Amino acid sequence: MSLVLRSYWRSSCSWRVRIALHWKQLPFETVPVHLVADGGHQHSMEHRALNPMRELPVLTANGESLAQSMAILEYLEETQPHPPLLPADPIARARVRQMAEVVNSGTQPIQNLRVMQHLGRVYDLPRDQQVEWSRDWIARGLGALETLVATHGGQCCFGDDVSYADLCLVPQLYNARRFGVNMDDLPTLVAVEGRLVEMPAFAAAHPDQQPDAA
Amino acid sequence: MSLVLRSYWRSSCSWRVRIALHWKQLPFETVPVHLVADGGHQHSMEHRALNPMRELPVLTANGESLAQSMAILEYLEETQPHPPLLPADPIARARVRQMAEVVNSGTQPIQNLRVMQHLGRVYDLPRDQQVEWSRDWIARGLGALETLVATHGGQCCFGDDVSYADLCLVPQLYNARRFGVNMDDLPTLVAVEGRLVEMPAFAAAHPDQQPDAA
Repeated sequence: MSLVLRSYWRSSCSWRVRIALHWKQLPFETVPVHLVADGGHQHSMEHRALNPMRELPVLTANGESLAQSMAILEYLEETQPHPPLLPADPIARARVRQMAEVVNSGTQPIQNLRVMQHLGRVYDLPRDQQVEWSRDWIARGLGALETLVATHGGQCCFGDDVSYADLCLVPQLYNARRFGVNMDDLPTLVAVEGRLVEMPAFAAAHPDQQPDAA
Repeated sequence: MSLVLRSYWRSSCSWRVRIALHWKQLPFETVPVHLVADGGHQHSMEHRALNPMRELPVLTANGESLAQSMAILEYLEETQPHPPLLPADPIARARVRQMAEVVNSGTQPIQNLRVMQHLGRVYDLPRDQQVEWSRDWIARGLGALETLVATHGGQCCFGDDVSYADLCLVPQLYNARRFGVNMDDLPTLVAVEGRLVEMPAFAAAHPDQQPDAA
């Protein structure tokens, strides 16, 4: 399988896919797309042809360009199932996906750069209020995830095996710290994160390890 | 399988799951949870015990309460695969999930009632600006989905078979009309919708057909 990942070092959704690719030991080429320079290279005609949402990541697999990190994770899991990122039992799989969605649809879309820029541009919200906005939504989402992981977690978010939920957790905690969320409220998540970041796949996927890190 | 769905008639994420349950002809009991009355019954201790995100839907299947509509759809697809809501080919499945995620994570979370209420409560945005906010984000998301469906669609969003993408499309178009999105920009989506709403599963899942419809 020939794999090309269009990615930005700090894009949390790109980061999820980078962890999955490293976890499954799939070689891939990174093509950086700068989300800020020149108003954002994701708005180029070239990128829009790959993803009309003008977002990252985009994974090109054997010539097909796929967007949306969760769709990409499911594709990788279906085509390269070992080592897995989902448990076998249907209820357990549902619980992992529920946790991942708390971040994927319940948190990240409301706090991301595009929304913050829109608040500033259209509604004149100053930068400190944009940061407050993102901090509030992250605290809300991760507060719920803390409860779920305290109930269902172990060494990882769900039980003792790495899953989609862990791939979503680590980048969201990075954003939480950037925006000043009180980490004392999230002891279970921080403990899980401490174990995850020791793993080679998580280390290799970190923003600072990317070719476009600034 | 004993199935109880906690739902609100106008909740677009509940609506997706209602279509799936009817599509797969799975009998279920509806328990309405009012998202507006008394400040929102989703904030009750009883509901928070089922879903710490304080959201709908929640599907209780054989005593396990699952939240997040996409996680629930995947659970139903894995445990009750016929009739399917995903194609068989991995790239086709990825494309369906990409389309669904354009709505699930790319549109609905940014335009929903909770975000509008937060804009009003915390940033004093008047109601007309809250509506403008939601209209802009829906137009952006559905504009991208229009391109994807024009490329990959047929009778339905992806090819000629009903999938997750269609379950996400119909409720999002309902919200689009509520908030005044220009539907002339979405001819492919409106044409697909016209075929979907004729189907019994879609008709039965419509908000106006729910026991708590106001």
